Amino acid sequence: MFESAELGHKISKTVWKKEVPELRGALLDAQLDLLQSKKFPVIILVAGVDCAGKGETVNLLNEWMDPRHIETHALRDLTDEELERPQMYRYWRVLPPKGKIGIFIGTWYSAPLLENVYGTIKNAELDQRLERIVHFERMLCNEGALVLKFWLHLSRDEQKKRLKSLEKDPKTRWRVTDTDWQHYKLYDKFRKVSERMLRTTSTAESPWTIVEGSDPNYRYLTIGKALLAALRQRLDAAEPPQHDEPIPPIMSTIDNLLILKTLDMSKQLKKSDYEDELEKYQGRLNLLTRHAGFRKLSVVTVFEGNDAAGKGGSIRRVTQALDARLYRIIPVAAPTDEELAQPYMWRFWRNIPRKGRFTIFDRSWYGRVLVERVEGLCGRGDWMRAYGEINDFEEQLVRNHTVVVKFWLSISQEEQLRRFKEREKIGFKRFKITDEDWRNREKWGEYEVAVCDMIDRTSTDIAPWTLVEANDKYYARIKILKTLCERIEAALGKI
Amino acid sequence: MFESAELGHKISKTVWKKEVPELRGALLDAQLDLLQSKKFPVIILVAGVDCAGKGETVNLLNEWMDPRHIETHALRDLTDEELERPQMYRYWRVLPPKGKIGIFIGTWYSAPLLENVYGTIKNAELDQRLERIVHFERMLCNEGALVLKFWLHLSRDEQKKRLKSLEKDPKTRWRVTDTDWQHYKLYDKFRKVSERMLRTTSTAESPWTIVEGSDPNYRYLTIGKALLAALRQRLDAAEPPQHDEPIPPIMSTIDNLLILKTLDMSKQLKKSDYEDELEKYQGRLNLLTRHAGFRKLSVVTVFEGNDAAGKGGSIRRVTQALDARLYRIIPVAAPTDEELAQPYMWRFWRNIPRKGRFTIFDRSWYGRVLVERVEGLCGRGDWMRAYGEINDFEEQLVRNHTVVVKFWLSISQEEQLRRFKEREKIGFKRFKITDEDWRNREKWGEYEVAVCDMIDRTSTDIAPWTLVEANDKYYARIKILKTLCERIEAALGKI
Repeated sequence: MFESAELGHKISKTVWKKEVPELRGALLDAQLDLLQSKKFPVIILVAGVDCAGKGETVNLLNEWMDPRHIETHALRDLTDEELERPQMYRYWRVLPPKGKIGIFIGTWYSAPLLENVYGTIKNAELDQRLERIVHFERMLCNEGALVLKFWLHLSRDEQKKRLKSLEKDPKTRWRVTDTDWQHYKLYDKFRKVSERMLRTTSTAESPWTIVEGSDPNYRYLTIGKALLAALRQRLDAAEPPQHDEPIPPIMSTIDNLLILKTLDMSKQLKKSDYEDELEKYQGRLNLLTRHAGFRKLSVVTVFEGNDAAGKGGSIRRVTQALDARLYRIIPVAAPTDEELAQPYMWRFWRNIPRKGRFTIFDRSWYGRVLVERVEGLCGRGDWMRAYGEINDFEEQLVRNHTVVVKFWLSISQEEQLRRFKEREKIGFKRFKITDEDWRNREKWGEYEVAVCDMIDRTSTDIAPWTLVEANDKYYARIKILKTLCERIEAALGKI
Repeated sequence: MFESAELGHKISKTVWKKEVPELRGALLDAQLDLLQSKKFPVIILVAGVDCAGKGETVNLLNEWMDPRHIETHALRDLTDEELERPQMYRYWRVLPPKGKIGIFIGTWYSAPLLENVYGTIKNAELDQRLERIVHFERMLCNEGALVLKFWLHLSRDEQKKRLKSLEKDPKTRWRVTDTDWQHYKLYDKFRKVSERMLRTTSTAESPWTIVEGSDPNYRYLTIGKALLAALRQRLDAAEPPQHDEPIPPIMSTIDNLLILKTLDMSKQLKKSDYEDELEKYQGRLNLLTRHAGFRKLSVVTVFEGNDAAGKGGSIRRVTQALDARLYRIIPVAAPTDEELAQPYMWRFWRNIPRKGRFTIFDRSWYGRVLVERVEGLCGRGDWMRAYGEINDFEEQLVRNHTVVVKFWLSISQEEQLRRFKEREKIGFKRFKITDEDWRNREKWGEYEVAVCDMIDRTSTDIAPWTLVEANDKYYARIKILKTLCERIEAALGKI
């Protein structure tokens, strides 16, 4: 894999002088087109062997283009805000919006690579983590990002030569650290692991480009040209690339026995029982948040359900049990323009709780496979891939000791009609029934299929759906509180 | 000041039962009107004596209203991201947007109060810090926020009674800490300092409401009613309150000797000298960023100037000297909708660098007193108060060891015309001259007055303006680099 990057590639001064001015002009033009069209974000990863010139290359890219629309990130130590959240959080929060360029040195590949070389993680875990990265990058690409990955390579001899020459010059001596020499001693190991990494993460959407690092001019020109070609291709494409390859239809059960139809919608609770149970479970929930172990957890709760199924009321019964300082409720509304310039999941990423806190989502990322699917607000390929992306996201949460509790509040068509009419009669503006509510109701069957597909594809062991029979509000609220308590207790038991 | 809050106020059960349902309904309605109109943000501070029921009160407000549109903040220990930035940063980042309610327990008053009680800061410093808070709150109010401040009071005997009763009940025992008893012993000191604090920070725009804390129902009902009255008054006002009281005109110098006119616009540098100096100062700047002390500083650079004065080119000469990992450039463009829902300064607050980093603003918060003033994009009162708000902001930066370096790049009217024509001739799209550029040019005189007023009012000892004679690009760039080096060197000298 590295053979071609050890041939001693060189660019003569004449070629350099001839080609650079034209390349710079073209890069600047492409960057301006990107900025004005706001078509997509550009994510550039610069990784590779120590002292192969990553920093210099990134500095040059900033010089060749307009640095006002480039942001360079060299993420090292995690801040304590990052430490309390999933591994990818630090990258999520600094992804470039559409129209801009983000350059990463010290990428999401650094940690797994180093940990494997130093023996902290075995090959199996390395592969797992790389697979997650592949998923993440695929999602970025599907969301429209241009992801370019450069690996700067040096042969063993070249690396040694480079370290020595940097050390000799008093001006650059500071750049060579003990760690660099330590890594050099592990050269063969690094080479082997890097090879494995490059191989498994070079995908059609975002392949690696391996660049020989020894001659700076060769390195700069290669990367500059690759960047220009990729930018121009995407900018000049008439349509955004269609990731929607022919997608096989989802096969619904042929006997129409949907999971939602198996719910016993007659379940109910007497008012007096409700009041006892409410006090009991709210008290239990409150105590749980004061458990010493709770500070090592966080809780993400998702409330989805039919219109008028009682999401708001249920959320209130949960928050009544909690200190207001511990929770945030995110009512999912129309995305802001900053959110629209980012991947679909971004507006949820930014609201992930720190340890010891709750985030309650009133509607959630499942909008994609529910309303967006049924109303045709996104492509078929978009909501089909969302199942996997959602599972990936929730897995990351769980791995970070987040308890993910998802409720689907289900009411019957008749009960919904009764509640709609009742609300119209009361006429309270805070329970206004809109035309949209009536329209959604007409698509009851389509929503039902979408909900069942959602449950089939995203109710996982680590983040299961709880289906709540909500014709009776008392029953529903207690089931929700009880489930929440049990899930948190189970998580506390594992600490 | 506390006399009325020691009278033993009480609300009977009958009154409570009669009044609460109506109050809740009215609060919910007001909250919904707020949410839909997005007229202003509501900032509620709940402070006061230990164990006077701050937490319970906030929980009840969340229960009475729709908690989905309230965010409660109890900020305690600073995270390391907050530690690297000005004191108010932690509050800036969580201010509620228009239409939402933010409740703060553990407010910006806590630190100065405690530090004075414990003797860490003297009265003079306490007053200084309170004065800064008054400025901050005044700015919030001027930006349209509704700021409500509640102080929950307990008499010495009542506090003791409350601590004992909480301790007796096994369910609430955990709430009484050693610190609470320690504070109780300092009751008189706390009372005295609180009195001073309440007195100096109770302003017409955001007065304190002192509430006796011993009877929960009295406390809840008082705060609920005060909140409702304030919300309704603002919501029902036909127009947003006009803070533009008659503002005296700014008096320009009567002899037309403006500071800008004293610049020697013929200053220039030979190309060969420029090249030598460029190398010299870029090298010096680069070395400065590798100085050990630099990790304790941060640098905020502001570039303002006439159109075509060469801001972009100058910024590039600065960034060429820097590692791309160390700087961010913020090109100030139209605000996003998230930014529009916040105070004017918010979009700058969010881009304040951490230690060891540069933020370079390509145009800045000075837009308010330049283009917004001249083009009438904000009220006269808005840009007049901006001078003071900007000085406050920059003072906060400097106090946090940020070097604030501000450049005004000045070219003559003739030179601008030459550059506009040249750019039109080249026709490079990245140097496009728009109709707006020509229009701005027609207002040359007005801009000149605005610039001079800006310099007069915001060129401070701690954050002075550097006026750059920019008819000659070489001269301008070197002056900028040299100034930047000198300012950083001076700051390093103080560490």
